[in-house]
Amino acid sequence: MLSVDLNCDMGEGFGAWKMGSDAELMKYASSVNIACGYHAGDATTIRRTVETAIEKGVAIGAHPGYPDLEGFGRRPMSLSPQEVFDIVLYQVSALKGICEATGGELHHVKPHGALYNQSAKDKILAIEIARAIKRIDGNLILYGLSGSCLISAAKELGLKSVSEVFADRAYEPDGSLTPRSEPHALIKDHEKAFSQVLQMVTTSTVTTANGDKVPVNADTVCIHGDGDHAVELAKTIRDGLVGNHIQIRPYYM
Amino acid sequence: MLSVDLNCDMGEGFGAWKMGSDAELMKYASSVNIACGYHAGDATTIRRTVETAIEKGVAIGAHPGYPDLEGFGRRPMSLSPQEVFDIVLYQVSALKGICEATGGELHHVKPHGALYNQSAKDKILAIEIARAIKRIDGNLILYGLSGSCLISAAKELGLKSVSEVFADRAYEPDGSLTPRSEPHALIKDHEKAFSQVLQMVTTSTVTTANGDKVPVNADTVCIHGDGDHAVELAKTIRDGLVGNHIQIRPYYM
Amino acid sequence: MLSVDLNCDMGEGFGAWKMGSDAELMKYASSVNIACGYHAGDATTIRRTVETAIEKGVAIGAHPGYPDLEGFGRRPMSLSPQEVFDIVLYQVSALKGICEATGGELHHVKPHGALYNQSAKDKILAIEIARAIKRIDGNLILYGLSGSCLISAAKELGLKSVSEVFADRAYEPDGSLTPRSEPHALIKDHEKAFSQVLQMVTTSTVTTANGDKVPVNADTVCIHGDGDHAVELAKTIRDGLVGNHIQIRPYYM
Amino acid sequence: MLSVDLNCDMGEGFGAWKMGSDAELMKYASSVNIACGYHAGDATTIRRTVETAIEKGVAIGAHPGYPDLEGFGRRPMSLSPQEVFDIVLYQVSALKGICEATGGELHHVKPHGALYNQSAKDKILAIEIARAIKRIDGNLILYGLSGSCLISAAKELGLKSVSEVFADRAYEPDGSLTPRSEPHALIKDHEKAFSQVLQMVTTSTVTTANGDKVPVNADTVCIHGDGDHAVELAKTIRDGLVGNHIQIRPYYM
Repeated sequence: MLSVDLNCDMGEGFGAWKMGSDAELMKYASSVNIACGYHAGDATTIRRTVETAIEKGVAIGAHPGYPDLEGFGRRPMSLSPQEVFDIVLYQVSALKGICEATGGELHHVKPHGALYNQSAKDKILAIEIARAIKRIDGNLILYGLSGSCLISAAKELGLKSVSEVFADRAYEPDGSLTPRSEPHALIKDHEKAFSQVLQMVTTSTVTTANGDKVPVNADTVCIHGDGDHAVELAKTIRDGLVGNHIQIRPYYM
Repeated sequence: MLSVDLNCDMGEGFGAWKMGSDAELMKYASSVNIACGYHAGDATTIRRTVETAIEKGVAIGAHPGYPDLEGFGRRPMSLSPQEVFDIVLYQVSALKGICEATGGELHHVKPHGALYNQSAKDKILAIEIARAIKRIDGNLILYGLSGSCLISAAKELGLKSVSEVFADRAYEPDGSLTPRSEPHALIKDHEKAFSQVLQMVTTSTVTTANGDKVPVNADTVCIHGDGDHAVELAKTIRDGLVGNHIQIRPYYM
Repeated sequence: MLSVDLNCDMGEGFGAWKMGSDAELMKYASSVNIACGYHAGDATTIRRTVETAIEKGVAIGAHPGYPDLEGFGRRPMSLSPQEVFDIVLYQVSALKGICEATGGELHHVKPHGALYNQSAKDKILAIEIARAIKRIDGNLILYGLSGSCLISAAKELGLKSVSEVFADRAYEPDGSLTPRSEPHALIKDHEKAFSQVLQMVTTSTVTTANGDKVPVNADTVCIHGDGDHAVELAKTIRDGLVGNHIQIRPYYM
Repeated sequence: MLSVDLNCDMGEGFGAWKMGSDAELMKYASSVNIACGYHAGDATTIRRTVETAIEKGVAIGAHPGYPDLEGFGRRPMSLSPQEVFDIVLYQVSALKGICEATGGELHHVKPHGALYNQSAKDKILAIEIARAIKRIDGNLILYGLSGSCLISAAKELGLKSVSEVFADRAYEPDGSLTPRSEPHALIKDHEKAFSQVLQMVTTSTVTTANGDKVPVNADTVCIHGDGDHAVELAKTIRDGLVGNHIQIRPYYM
């Protein structure tokens, strides 16, 4: 039986500020990526989110980002490779400890925002991220964009990796995501988004704007946690996959 | 043979800003308390300080503080008991992970600044701190002011504790520290400070301003890391203790 | 004709995080208090909020708070009087400059959260706040709780002040607010809240839980910006006051 | 009589952390650039530095930077043009208000670190910075690297500008600074640094590594505030210039 993971970012509030519909989305996700305090997530929000994730039985990941609360970790930064190693080491360590103290277990690491995007294309950053993870625990799984430097860095260092695809983003002929600045970058129709997911999961291909089919590895599908229709899209994707006899579960479990 | 621990705060720089003479003081301390990022210490500074501590063979402690970089964790704050639990859980988790990833081991936890002072007198805060530590690792040792709520909280929860005394601070008849606002609060003469240490270590008493001798447990002596004469005082104390055939080593080792 | 000011906190988002229904509430308020970056409000959010306030023609106030994003400025802190002076000077200066650069004018200052509450009862803090405001511009108006130290500090320094009352909070016999920890602290019924406002505005009294009438100065009524029913309550109060021929406008205008 | 300005960054401590020898360097500088809280400088440090600058009679500038305390504003960031406008508007407003409340006057604005470097080459950023300054006060003077986009942006918007040169940095044939990554980027010999300054001030040229003379405008010379020999180099430059009958004073005064 075919299976796929649905992952979702969580715990991205900060103090009095809320973000996303964590409890609602946790019904549809099989794995969650929890903010670690650098781009979002204070100590209380993180601990609570970990507790909820354990209760719901989803796989827990650390979601380390750049030290940029004001920019929510979405602004590209220029950290040295050593600094990237250090901020990943710090954040993943914090989340792993909180998980274990709460009775859970850390399953994976997915870099956030600009750190994710920059390390998808920058081999040196990707290696530093993988190195930091391996130093903490060689059994942790690295989530990265399908075909990106993160996936190859994980392989190079002997870490397990999970290739991520996106339901609501168009793809380029080289397998990369169409930049958000392009007019057709976002797939707003939920049925089209689901069709893309189904094709990716069942055929390991995605169809680009010009009609080409390019290969992707759809180990996990990213479910966005923000946006007005996040919960509805998550439900559409999960129900559609289940209706097509595809099991929803974390890739390595 | 008598022994005592000399502990010192470390890793309290932040980014481009430096604090203290870590490398120099590491020669005299047998255990160090490393800032965890809330009152001081960025990811790179912390990792480097951990590496140096491992290299020097000193016992490594986490030094969690209030989330107040601007106030260096020295300003009393009003966090809820749950928030105190959460910030200790987060910070100690981060430091423990960095230690282990770097080839070391976390030995103890010593709260910093206002968190240390408030939990010395507030039983509820002290219990939350001890609870967070125990949830991470029941073998971690809690450093707290001799006779304080931190020590009794550790006992209540079955954690090992280490009672701390101060070389350069005067004591009150009830065994508490003379507040810094008082004229004779600080012992500036290095020989007097050493004499107080020697008395505390060898007799488990300290002499107050009015001549009374009150009991203290001198498991560890705090060596301040800042101040113009920090290194000199550390050397005076260490050399004096060694000259009196007292061994310098972490209390539980 | 009787008049009263309705004031509301605004601009309390931070980066990607939103807070409150600023645009909606701006329809009902006659003056707004804009976060200055310490407890909430980044540079972009502040500038945008100032622009909207100018467009809507409401009086603009600075809303300085403690440097505590994580606690949203609601946690009591222990700053020195000089530090309180300095953080008010910095924040009000920033907001005044942004106002003037955007074509507006700064009308008043209302301290936020724990700074407001602590300075209501602490004469020294209240004086520091008033001193900082006066040093910036002696024509700025200080908003403070009716009967509080902020109002007397403003008088002592020759600043204009505006006494604030609350629609949805019960009052104690001494004219202070019933602490939120008490069961009847919050008035959840909108009609009751409006009745309290009407009585305060028309008779300068408020009725306490035990039936006593105590004096208050209702120069301005605080409209809370958060909470599920904030907009609805604001509308009820404004419409009710207008229906009773009371003009809604800033006190000094 | 020839004259030149010597400018120095100041107020770059943060809370308990110190940076630079402000009081000492203030003897040699004729203008100072004071941190505004984003890359360094808390409210108390800023107010104190402004007071000292007023006392010493040096021209006061705002020194706005990126919101990156951990990176001291030295790490390139990717803010939108509007965000750059907003962070400059906020920071310069704060400093101007503090200056005026303290009895002084804001004279100029010099962007800090990565903001300075990026806007030297990026016309859009430079225009945003100049636009924010002009909106605050059209009489403020913009300090920027000689020949950079900041200087041309100031001209385009009708702002006065001051062209900056460096004593201890080598120059490239196109008039730009030799990147710090190059072996000969830094001029460590104080006499050589002074000679370069003297040539720049008296002939408006600088000699590159290959012996070419290229034009520069030396309205102001940057005196670095950090580094072991900062004070000594400042003294060498000031004494040398005075000995050559060149007056030290702010360019527009």
